[in-house]
Amino acid sequence: MEAPITFVDDRLLRKVPSWRTYLAAKLGFRNHWYPIKLSREIGESQIVTATLCGENILLKRIDGKVYALRDRCIHRGVPFSEKLECYTKGTITCWYHGFTYKWETGELCDILASPDSKAIGRQSVKSYPVQEAKGAVFVFMGDDDVKPHPLCEDVPPMFLDEDLALEGDSYMVQSNWRVGCENGFDGLHVYIHRTSPLVNDTQRSLPVGHTANSGQIVLHEVDGQPKGVYDEFAHHVSLWEGQVEGDVVVRGVRNTRTDGVPTRTTAASLWLPGVLRVDDFPDAGRHQFEWYVPVSEDEHYYLIMIGKRVTNPQEALDHEQEFWNRWKPVSLDGFNNQDIEARLALQKFYGRDSAWLQEMLIEGDHPIIKWRELCHRHNRGVQRPDHL
Amino acid sequence: MEAPITFVDDRLLRKVPSWRTYLAAKLGFRNHWYPIKLSREIGESQIVTATLCGENILLKRIDGKVYALRDRCIHRGVPFSEKLECYTKGTITCWYHGFTYKWETGELCDILASPDSKAIGRQSVKSYPVQEAKGAVFVFMGDDDVKPHPLCEDVPPMFLDEDLALEGDSYMVQSNWRVGCENGFDGLHVYIHRTSPLVNDTQRSLPVGHTANSGQIVLHEVDGQPKGVYDEFAHHVSLWEGQVEGDVVVRGVRNTRTDGVPTRTTAASLWLPGVLRVDDFPDAGRHQFEWYVPVSEDEHYYLIMIGKRVTNPQEALDHEQEFWNRWKPVSLDGFNNQDIEARLALQKFYGRDSAWLQEMLIEGDHPIIKWRELCHRHNRGVQRPDHL
Amino acid sequence: MEAPITFVDDRLLRKVPSWRTYLAAKLGFRNHWYPIKLSREIGESQIVTATLCGENILLKRIDGKVYALRDRCIHRGVPFSEKLECYTKGTITCWYHGFTYKWETGELCDILASPDSKAIGRQSVKSYPVQEAKGAVFVFMGDDDVKPHPLCEDVPPMFLDEDLALEGDSYMVQSNWRVGCENGFDGLHVYIHRTSPLVNDTQRSLPVGHTANSGQIVLHEVDGQPKGVYDEFAHHVSLWEGQVEGDVVVRGVRNTRTDGVPTRTTAASLWLPGVLRVDDFPDAGRHQFEWYVPVSEDEHYYLIMIGKRVTNPQEALDHEQEFWNRWKPVSLDGFNNQDIEARLALQKFYGRDSAWLQEMLIEGDHPIIKWRELCHRHNRGVQRPDHL
Repeated sequence: MEAPITFVDDRLLRKVPSWRTYLAAKLGFRNHWYPIKLSREIGESQIVTATLCGENILLKRIDGKVYALRDRCIHRGVPFSEKLECYTKGTITCWYHGFTYKWETGELCDILASPDSKAIGRQSVKSYPVQEAKGAVFVFMGDDDVKPHPLCEDVPPMFLDEDLALEGDSYMVQSNWRVGCENGFDGLHVYIHRTSPLVNDTQRSLPVGHTANSGQIVLHEVDGQPKGVYDEFAHHVSLWEGQVEGDVVVRGVRNTRTDGVPTRTTAASLWLPGVLRVDDFPDAGRHQFEWYVPVSEDEHYYLIMIGKRVTNPQEALDHEQEFWNRWKPVSLDGFNNQDIEARLALQKFYGRDSAWLQEMLIEGDHPIIKWRELCHRHNRGVQRPDHL
Repeated sequence: MEAPITFVDDRLLRKVPSWRTYLAAKLGFRNHWYPIKLSREIGESQIVTATLCGENILLKRIDGKVYALRDRCIHRGVPFSEKLECYTKGTITCWYHGFTYKWETGELCDILASPDSKAIGRQSVKSYPVQEAKGAVFVFMGDDDVKPHPLCEDVPPMFLDEDLALEGDSYMVQSNWRVGCENGFDGLHVYIHRTSPLVNDTQRSLPVGHTANSGQIVLHEVDGQPKGVYDEFAHHVSLWEGQVEGDVVVRGVRNTRTDGVPTRTTAASLWLPGVLRVDDFPDAGRHQFEWYVPVSEDEHYYLIMIGKRVTNPQEALDHEQEFWNRWKPVSLDGFNNQDIEARLALQKFYGRDSAWLQEMLIEGDHPIIKWRELCHRHNRGVQRPDHL
Repeated sequence: MEAPITFVDDRLLRKVPSWRTYLAAKLGFRNHWYPIKLSREIGESQIVTATLCGENILLKRIDGKVYALRDRCIHRGVPFSEKLECYTKGTITCWYHGFTYKWETGELCDILASPDSKAIGRQSVKSYPVQEAKGAVFVFMGDDDVKPHPLCEDVPPMFLDEDLALEGDSYMVQSNWRVGCENGFDGLHVYIHRTSPLVNDTQRSLPVGHTANSGQIVLHEVDGQPKGVYDEFAHHVSLWEGQVEGDVVVRGVRNTRTDGVPTRTTAASLWLPGVLRVDDFPDAGRHQFEWYVPVSEDEHYYLIMIGKRVTNPQEALDHEQEFWNRWKPVSLDGFNNQDIEARLALQKFYGRDSAWLQEMLIEGDHPIIKWRELCHRHNRGVQRPDHL
């Protein structure tokens, strides 16, 4: 049996007209920028592999700049990475018949076993636009006839600000990327974090939930700017006790910091093509960025970056050290790991396409519905089986 | 691709009109009672998991009574069992957002992270009727709008008799449940048991087969009573020798017991929704009950119980000891294990749906055809992909 | 879901009208002879199993002659090989109910558990014609109503010649059989063999490729003779240097043998149902035969035989010793293993049916297209899901 036109059955898609393409985008959206590696992971002349939206990609840094080619020879489809052959700095040669491509453009410039073929100079392997920013390598998963949009339209506001120092780390998570987005943005899932070491470490307050309809969602849909959904926590009416049949069984944490600074997350916002920004998190004055990058239908690349505004190089260095000494163990490995566990559990359900119609969302899930609809309105294309 | 309307392709189903729904019931029938655990496996306050017809179920015993809920939060589908949270005796709370349900009814009684949601009191998780009998916990795999039928309609006659003492044990077998039913009921498969230690232990007679058309099938199809197919072995013309091209190559066993009691199985009968009763087995005066309970398409829960009529508690205790000291090693592990091996081999064939149309049944398989047709006439519904 | 009519989606098949049945033949062609074992692997009275075109087969040698039956009882589909029971030299008995078949014809001659069944003498298990030649056991994977064609129509010319001594060995390779055929016949893939120990061992010349359109393909399509595609290397314009952007980066090998005999492969030809002949390979005066026999959709039986014309028994013995002492380590394990690696990489691509429409063949792949079209014109049937 052959792959259908979309990854998700059309009978299901028709049932959710207001977020149809979001349901269809099991392997992500096309014509968007996605981070695929951290810059530090690709040294000069180094070749690394990655998978984005189901497409296998080779990356190489040449004279400082990173180039990306599809890891599949156009001739008979074998992966270059099976046996890397590089005879010049600017080219890669397929080990099977010597098809040689330019890293910069993907152009087929030579075939060692057939140097007078008419294909030379006329064909090329898929080459992906690459841009580095803030320590991450972004790849534009684009159609051949689509000019890359500016990167600034595909990252959350503030991310590219010059005075924002960023440091991050990444994980491979065995769930669909949409499950990652929705778990991260979910205003009620604070419930699972009450046991996180982050709570004491930051002397933060952490409610167990909030009252229904207490949020206020702002949609960002201005042409030429990032498209996102903004949930201001200031509008939430926090709950500090969880009750079962009238008895308090769970309590939130209401800390007063010794230095008097209140530590409370102030907002969460989720942006196309799948990146969260959490303000004043993991601590006051910090901003956490989380990408849920589609790898396969049941895996996403989970990139977490923490940003802080700095005014000089020493502050940037302090921020870097704080990331590795404090936030990596206490927040990424001590707080976000609880999110990863939740996503693995969600995947058991949402891994079946029909489950998306079996869920039963409540008032507090309103931002998630807004997110799905915004994606449906503003995505630039859906990854389909025939792209693979 | 999405799940089709049934688990089995309609083009195949149309080819067997007289047992169509039996072929469709790859994951079993709905609106029937199935044993799912032995009573002794669920202690007071204990929570255990099981899977029935593809549905994951949580069971808890509260004040002696067992309750069953679907192991899947209605909100976002995560399994409760991923991280059990129980704050009161009568409720279970989902670890993800604190959705809390009553064990007795499945009613959503609280949401810890959103206590004023309108869903509270209006929604509920699937709750399954539970009944215990003869040391087994039965669950009614029912549609929401179907009132449970009396348990006595879904067990073989005699099983619930007050004077019948029962003891049993269970196995997980990697074959479809229908393969289990048909192997157990098959009058000719006695052929594989000639090497069983049970033969000598009980000084029983064991033929190698019987002549064609020598059985006499009685159908039980009275309203309000168990539906089943009855094969009286007294009508079989037993064969004591197996021949190849005129030469005897295999001999059955014709024992005369020292105490003069003839040991011979007298009848086998198979009942909806998939339970066998064998009379005078494993020995005279005993009745073996075997359930083949659908778990997944290639797994069934194989519950074997041996019953004996008793007149006082000491006889019941003697029966219990005989089960563990004699029948468990000699019969369950020494005779029925041969059936399990046969089912694993059958599954290699019948695991492909189209194989059901490729088999070539003979005269002695007449009871099996009768069984399939009876199931088709009397089942109360078929488990479908959309139930999962 | 049930198996479709072919293994490959009809929407794809329609796109390649000139080689449609080749694309459909994921599990091979029917009504052809395939080697399935080496003769030395089946001793007198020995029973061995094999899989051909997805069908499990049992082979037994009786009084020197090999017989083949489908390893699946007609009654309820269990494999005989699960527990072999053979009571007479000429029969096999199913362990489940004693269905007994004659090795010679497949006829059901006895049922031990039901000796008076009307099926006896009227039914039979699939029996495959078997023929041994040149040390290999050939099986005709035929339809019941098709008389086996002469073996000589399904092997390359010369293979059956009386004066050709042959010795061989086999491998199981995890790729589709068509991937094996095309990798072996491919005139440009010489590129991957430049590191093979065979080059020095035989002091052979080995180019890195050849110029576009330099081959000359001869089609063999005479009625009653083998059907094949012949590529004479004499017509190739060999290339001895591989260049990238004008610089030589890879060199072929131009050896002059000390004994003055030029060692160069002179021709490759590929024959239905999937067997390659390479002339003057691995050395002058030798002929290598390579079968790519369909096992499953992602596995083929790779049988390599090396032939040499001999005039007396001593020369045949010398050839046998040369095979084991020289060609097995240096050529099969030192040269053809590079082909196996290439096929595993190809399978990652061609394992998806739609990939066959995504490849981008060049001038030098012309013989491969001719091969596909020849197969389409001359195959005698396609293995389909309903054959399994």
